[in-house]
Amino acid sequence: MDRIGVVDTMFARFDMGSEALDELSGCPGFGTTFEVVRRTVPGFKDLGVACKRLIEQEDCRIVVALGMPGKAAIDQVCAHEASQGIMLAQLLTSTHILEVFVHENEEEDPGRLAAVCVDRARKHARNAYWMLYEPEQLTRNAGRGVRQGYGDAGPIAG
Amino acid sequence: MDRIGVVDTMFARFDMGSEALDELSGCPGFGTTFEVVRRTVPGFKDLGVACKRLIEQEDCRIVVALGMPGKAAIDQVCAHEASQGIMLAQLLTSTHILEVFVHENEEEDPGRLAAVCVDRARKHARNAYWMLYEPEQLTRNAGRGVRQGYGDAGPIAG
Amino acid sequence: MDRIGVVDTMFARFDMGSEALDELSGCPGFGTTFEVVRRTVPGFKDLGVACKRLIEQEDCRIVVALGMPGKAAIDQVCAHEASQGIMLAQLLTSTHILEVFVHENEEEDPGRLAAVCVDRARKHARNAYWMLYEPEQLTRNAGRGVRQGYGDAGPIAG
Amino acid sequence: MDRIGVVDTMFARFDMGSEALDELSGCPGFGTTFEVVRRTVPGFKDLGVACKRLIEQEDCRIVVALGMPGKAAIDQVCAHEASQGIMLAQLLTSTHILEVFVHENEEEDPGRLAAVCVDRARKHARNAYWMLYEPEQLTRNAGRGVRQGYGDAGPIAG
Amino acid sequence: MDRIGVVDTMFARFDMGSEALDELSGCPGFGTTFEVVRRTVPGFKDLGVACKRLIEQEDCRIVVALGMPGKAAIDQVCAHEASQGIMLAQLLTSTHILEVFVHENEEEDPGRLAAVCVDRARKHARNAYWMLYEPEQLTRNAGRGVRQGYGDAGPIAG
Repeated sequence: MDRIGVVDTMFARFDMGSEALDELSGCPGFGTTFEVVRRTVPGFKDLGVACKRLIEQEDCRIVVALGMPGKAAIDQVCAHEASQGIMLAQLLTSTHILEVFVHENEEEDPGRLAAVCVDRARKHARNAYWMLYEPEQLTRNAGRGVRQGYGDAGPIAG
Repeated sequence: MDRIGVVDTMFARFDMGSEALDELSGCPGFGTTFEVVRRTVPGFKDLGVACKRLIEQEDCRIVVALGMPGKAAIDQVCAHEASQGIMLAQLLTSTHILEVFVHENEEEDPGRLAAVCVDRARKHARNAYWMLYEPEQLTRNAGRGVRQGYGDAGPIAG
Repeated sequence: MDRIGVVDTMFARFDMGSEALDELSGCPGFGTTFEVVRRTVPGFKDLGVACKRLIEQEDCRIVVALGMPGKAAIDQVCAHEASQGIMLAQLLTSTHILEVFVHENEEEDPGRLAAVCVDRARKHARNAYWMLYEPEQLTRNAGRGVRQGYGDAGPIAG
Repeated sequence: MDRIGVVDTMFARFDMGSEALDELSGCPGFGTTFEVVRRTVPGFKDLGVACKRLIEQEDCRIVVALGMPGKAAIDQVCAHEASQGIMLAQLLTSTHILEVFVHENEEEDPGRLAAVCVDRARKHARNAYWMLYEPEQLTRNAGRGVRQGYGDAGPIAG
Repeated sequence: MDRIGVVDTMFARFDMGSEALDELSGCPGFGTTFEVVRRTVPGFKDLGVACKRLIEQEDCRIVVALGMPGKAAIDQVCAHEASQGIMLAQLLTSTHILEVFVHENEEEDPGRLAAVCVDRARKHARNAYWMLYEPEQLTRNAGRGVRQGYGDAGPIAG
């Protein structure tokens, strides 16, 4: 059975990992074609190596990495470092890792921020499923302004 | 038969991948000397590893990677990370990957932005062809201010 | 017996390494299941390779890396470089390294700055222990706004 | 016979590659001890992997990489990425690559900009020669404020 | 006999390499336990690979890398790239490289700038010696605000 990894953090202020898990559990083949492995790390700088370990040691074929950069200026630098770690983990393993970051300052209202978390986590969990089993879903949407967390921007009227 | 890879994104708001494919299909040897393999990923941070996989697992000898950074400030940081991923993919595979990014804020008018997308995607697709089969086309233009997306800047009048 | 590494610097103005050591010495299995190896380096840019050496040459299964970026503007760039080094050390060894940085300008008052050092060093030392022996402690706190150095932010009221 | 690589770009607005070639052709041993291999790539982000390929596949013992970052703000970020690529190519091959970048905004006057290009390209071509065959030329100038593109700054009067 | 590497640049405006060499020549075991190998490169972006070559090809067990970033804004970006190169060289070789950078704008007065150069080069040369032969000198100074170039900041009064 294939394995899809889900890694999230204690630092984040919304349980995005559970959203991703729930979305994957509703995809065709869950429990028969693929199963899901979850890990939680302290903060988003720990995501890169956690993903790499899931790929190397737990045979995950793709991983969804979820984190929430805080509001402070230093958090932006840390988010950049965390992203570089996830990028490097992808390139050293030749395996896709979908980065799902929701910046705490994307929305002031907690309810709206939570809605962004839910939408982005679920859409990227679905993307992970598509990349493994239905890549044509991605190709038919090439260049169409598809977004996660919010509604699609759509193609430009060129 | 050689293979040239083309990778684009769902995030982009113009189908640059199809422009690159069309340009390559008009190059000498298409279908006899070389064929084209296309992949679409969610966003531009997924391009680096997708290119690496095309090189390692699909035997592509060169890849064209197309993306469109959005207008938000955070998109500039993400574009930087995406570029670093493409750079690393090149260096880990010792294979050229031509990065074709059109920033959404390069042009306000959708029609002009689309024109930049078409021109840049096609010229870099042609560059990929040249790098494999006619490298002298590049050498004879060394230091001549050649541009993609817009007209050439030309050499300085030194 | 397992080994946990602790690396700190002469540059830091508080002995965070000793706090981490003391915290680990109070964890279940100290001296029987695991022991601690400590190294001190000049500054935080030396942490990355020191951690990698502890993992490769001293068989440490996880490392806690402690540093204190100074107040000058250049120190922020150096902190970024130091963090990238720790990130790379993690990815090249597929081993977790918990970065514990306390910026000297987080608090003006020395007593409060010291309290941040104590709290952050100890909580991350505990995190290192949990990651090896009680990972369920992390998973049950996924997305709950857990912090080190200060009190938890808690989950958003979404 | 040894080989020295020279890589330049179509993007640059001055033919720095030819200056480097001409300088090397005037060095002792040209054509007997060493020969020169030239490649041209589209832009400076393609330099890193082109240099790596010259080292790995064409046996170049050192490479001179020439590029001209444009005037736009985004060009500064791209120059940073291009430099990181050249740095990584050096470290992955354990081979020196001399980066010769002339920023288009270093001089407003085209004639003066061209003069910077000529001087910097030639001096770094000579440096490449020295590094291979006369390293003592570098050591005797240690800490003496040597510059390329402009006159030397000289040592401080400490 | 062990080997310690010292690499400096022609770009720097003070001969820091000679200071480091002189300091090491006064350490116990010089000429019997260890010897010193010196290299000079054009600029600080060449330091990383030069250090890596000293480690790989000249068997240096530790290296001191000395450079002086200039006053221009672009020099700060270049310094960042140079530091990343030194960091990567450390991690790819699992060997310490002590980065000794004196920014030309740290002091306006040439005499004071020279004094910073002397102090920082010598203290880091001594650190290199300690790291190989007397690591307890570092551990006893953990968290004590030790500085190079200027007097120690000392521990905070927490």
